[in-house]
Amino acid sequence: MSKTFRLVISCPDRVGIVAAVSQYLNERNGSIVEANHHTDPEQKWFFMRHVIDAETMSVDIDTFRKEFSEIASKFEMDWFINSSEEKPKVMLMATKESHCLNDLLHRWHTGELQCDIVGVIANHEDLRSMVEWYNIPYHCINVPKDDKMPAFQAIEKAIDESGADTIVLARYMQIFPEYLCEKYRHRVINIHHSFLPSFIGAKPYHQAAVRGVKLIGATCHYVTADLDAGPIIEQDVIRVRHSHSATDMVRLGKDIEKLVLSRGLRYHIEDRVLVHGNKTVVFAQ
Amino acid sequence: MSKTFRLVISCPDRVGIVAAVSQYLNERNGSIVEANHHTDPEQKWFFMRHVIDAETMSVDIDTFRKEFSEIASKFEMDWFINSSEEKPKVMLMATKESHCLNDLLHRWHTGELQCDIVGVIANHEDLRSMVEWYNIPYHCINVPKDDKMPAFQAIEKAIDESGADTIVLARYMQIFPEYLCEKYRHRVINIHHSFLPSFIGAKPYHQAAVRGVKLIGATCHYVTADLDAGPIIEQDVIRVRHSHSATDMVRLGKDIEKLVLSRGLRYHIEDRVLVHGNKTVVFAQ
Amino acid sequence: MSKTFRLVISCPDRVGIVAAVSQYLNERNGSIVEANHHTDPEQKWFFMRHVIDAETMSVDIDTFRKEFSEIASKFEMDWFINSSEEKPKVMLMATKESHCLNDLLHRWHTGELQCDIVGVIANHEDLRSMVEWYNIPYHCINVPKDDKMPAFQAIEKAIDESGADTIVLARYMQIFPEYLCEKYRHRVINIHHSFLPSFIGAKPYHQAAVRGVKLIGATCHYVTADLDAGPIIEQDVIRVRHSHSATDMVRLGKDIEKLVLSRGLRYHIEDRVLVHGNKTVVFAQ
Amino acid sequence: MSKTFRLVISCPDRVGIVAAVSQYLNERNGSIVEANHHTDPEQKWFFMRHVIDAETMSVDIDTFRKEFSEIASKFEMDWFINSSEEKPKVMLMATKESHCLNDLLHRWHTGELQCDIVGVIANHEDLRSMVEWYNIPYHCINVPKDDKMPAFQAIEKAIDESGADTIVLARYMQIFPEYLCEKYRHRVINIHHSFLPSFIGAKPYHQAAVRGVKLIGATCHYVTADLDAGPIIEQDVIRVRHSHSATDMVRLGKDIEKLVLSRGLRYHIEDRVLVHGNKTVVFAQ
Repeated sequence: MSKTFRLVISCPDRVGIVAAVSQYLNERNGSIVEANHHTDPEQKWFFMRHVIDAETMSVDIDTFRKEFSEIASKFEMDWFINSSEEKPKVMLMATKESHCLNDLLHRWHTGELQCDIVGVIANHEDLRSMVEWYNIPYHCINVPKDDKMPAFQAIEKAIDESGADTIVLARYMQIFPEYLCEKYRHRVINIHHSFLPSFIGAKPYHQAAVRGVKLIGATCHYVTADLDAGPIIEQDVIRVRHSHSATDMVRLGKDIEKLVLSRGLRYHIEDRVLVHGNKTVVFAQ
Repeated sequence: MSKTFRLVISCPDRVGIVAAVSQYLNERNGSIVEANHHTDPEQKWFFMRHVIDAETMSVDIDTFRKEFSEIASKFEMDWFINSSEEKPKVMLMATKESHCLNDLLHRWHTGELQCDIVGVIANHEDLRSMVEWYNIPYHCINVPKDDKMPAFQAIEKAIDESGADTIVLARYMQIFPEYLCEKYRHRVINIHHSFLPSFIGAKPYHQAAVRGVKLIGATCHYVTADLDAGPIIEQDVIRVRHSHSATDMVRLGKDIEKLVLSRGLRYHIEDRVLVHGNKTVVFAQ
Repeated sequence: MSKTFRLVISCPDRVGIVAAVSQYLNERNGSIVEANHHTDPEQKWFFMRHVIDAETMSVDIDTFRKEFSEIASKFEMDWFINSSEEKPKVMLMATKESHCLNDLLHRWHTGELQCDIVGVIANHEDLRSMVEWYNIPYHCINVPKDDKMPAFQAIEKAIDESGADTIVLARYMQIFPEYLCEKYRHRVINIHHSFLPSFIGAKPYHQAAVRGVKLIGATCHYVTADLDAGPIIEQDVIRVRHSHSATDMVRLGKDIEKLVLSRGLRYHIEDRVLVHGNKTVVFAQ
Repeated sequence: MSKTFRLVISCPDRVGIVAAVSQYLNERNGSIVEANHHTDPEQKWFFMRHVIDAETMSVDIDTFRKEFSEIASKFEMDWFINSSEEKPKVMLMATKESHCLNDLLHRWHTGELQCDIVGVIANHEDLRSMVEWYNIPYHCINVPKDDKMPAFQAIEKAIDESGADTIVLARYMQIFPEYLCEKYRHRVINIHHSFLPSFIGAKPYHQAAVRGVKLIGATCHYVTADLDAGPIIEQDVIRVRHSHSATDMVRLGKDIEKLVLSRGLRYHIEDRVLVHGNKTVVFAQ
């Protein structure tokens, strides 16, 4: 796969945005590999993502950034451009459950996820051996019940030292403090093991078993200070029957959690997710 | 299809139930066409449904009822036997939206639903012509905002005079009064246009659009006095994207509502649904 | 919903297409409501669909057609522009099975399908009463086994006199002659009751039951002279179990046939389907 | 989980089978945890699976086998009884692709698959390190193009020495010779990367891309001498669009392959799959 640029834009909707952007690209000979547009008619907001063949462009990414900022300011754009050669840096976090972690590490190892995994932070030692097989640094940071703040400061330090731009809570069973939710806004991805907004909080499969639902699900979302209420990136469900106990649901649900989290992370690192208010635009392939 | 009996049993779980029932059937030469069992290990409760080829039985249904009551009382069974020749009588209820009503009427008309539709009760005239094409009585009973009780008494009368044993709220936009929920316990089937327990109450698709969920759904459940909280019979979902407005969700959701309601009703009239507490055992084919 | 134009383009891929189109629209003040792009890197072919708010355009559709043809010829475009006010004219065809016909008629009647149904052609009288309830002309044209050509000439005449631009085979159980497939190329939509390319030809559910598959499906495709091998528009499946006979599969399959055909037709009449070679680009919402 | 017996029976259908079996179990005080029945009305064949709480039985498994053989021969049963304490022994086979192997090993490692993995046979060295992390013997047996028989004899020897009763081809890219298909009849499980019977043979995703299907799938089946035509255990599909190349389909398909193979294997090792002719009865939970 050759080098590409990803240009991602959101701005108030008005006539002329596409013309201005495509004219700019055309004048620099940019060949568009993939293009997505969305207009939200209620919010009157416009969203756009382009993948451009970098080899065809007559300017480099720094010149692009300089030149394009003029168009961007004219249209009040919230925008960025990324190169496929600068891979996102991802920090994974987990507790003891290994299914999501194993799934993400395997996808990364086989080249399916275009990112660097810069480390794993866990509050237990259980997953160290698995992680170290992949030659990835393992940070075990215990989070004591009665005094969590020093632990989260250590976590913050580990994240910042790693240079991670994305943090994935791969069944990390601790609630992120509000100040970290804000510091890493729209950069912390969680997998919740229910079809939100059903069954917020603890033990969602047990809640599902008690309610007698016929489908269980999982939700990948950005973490905000409001528990399990952040912008949803991806969801999916699986059918259950009366013959499935809460324990069976835990087992069946793992398959959905893995799929939903890996899809959500993939969308995120490929710059396919644009957040607006508490909702996402996801330009899936 | 030849005549069959449906024997449906639930009782406290203990050793010997299946032996007693199957020995009884064997001694009367009953050929079992379909058999389903479920043991709930937490509730220690047992559920069983048999479909028996009636032609092979050496006794008729009345004799069966008399003889079997001895076994039933020994095992403290909640039980009944139905003949495929005595079709359930179903009263449909609707408001103005026609998609569920049209779907159910067409399935019934083409022989897919083994029941008699004894009438349609609506609080508007809009659907009369469609219903009368099927030669089904149409009862228009207006439900005034400020005095609903006389209307519900008229509805009750229409139901009772029709001999209906099952009432289907096919997008009927009125809340059933508590006394009718109790009178027709586990006999009133509703379709709610969300994946319960998400988005209880009014305008669930608009709630879904605001929350930014990536799947919308529908739920078929027995009506209880507790709004949208009765035992769930069937659920399903469909994928939505950022490009779908609340209006699009209303349209897409209709397909799921129709499917879920028709499946739920089919299970009900084929005696496949056993309610225990606030949950169902559904012996789907 | 206000008046819109749908501009649909496919052409050899090269730099500058989007710039030229968007500049043209921008200069005429056209507000883009929906935009989809696709580049096929293997075929080096480009596909584009715009929905434009007609009220914002400074030119009418005829002027647009004249002006735009210059850009079109420069880029060797295969293209057209349609107005939402000129509804597609659809002729439905059926035999005796009513499920797809009832489904399409109901969707049309409730405003879900933005087209005119100009008539129903059937080779039996069974469905006349249903169709006439909708005040739609019913043409019963018998197709005798030993001499089909006169029948198909009568069908052709009925289609052409109706002004239909789209023909939908809603479980029409006759094979279209080659000359009609060619005359109405990419305008005849069929629903095949299997997940193609599995189970081509007759009695696909019985073939599926014999093979013991665990999912059955349906395929909506354009009819070509090559039986069940035309470009696929839409497909879906439903789960089956060992307990489902071929007869059960016929029943379950109907739900999928209805959904798949109605989705496929919707995509077609909204100009969302672009055919290239034997494949489709479907710009679903 | 306490110790259970799994009693699995298939035989010609006639009155009295269930009565005889349940009476036998009742007389030995056997508490039935799970029971499934299926009658194939066309084949006039009966299928039954019981899970019995071993602690409640007044006889041990050897006595059961002796005593029950009398009933079995009376009804011409094909039958067996297994104890949950005697885990199935599974040999995995792979080539270079790791997704199915990683998935199965992780499920086994976390206790989700109730079996012993007795080894991995591969025709390349690529997967050795992953397998050895799990402390599982890795047999690299090269299969030269021009003389495969010695390799398959070595494979046969490795299987037999391991005591494996089940062989799983987890994307093993060699065709099993006919004599091994027969020797291990209904014991070799393959995952084929298409929704069979579509796209038999090599490069099914490329075949799917050429045909332009809108869903791709995977099929778990027992291997027979007839390529990709053995009894199907499980299938599933995932949606694809025009924007997905064959390479994308390969990636998306992996998720379905993993799910379908792991479900199929789970059904097999829990004795939930009964083969009759070229079809399966799958008593899924």
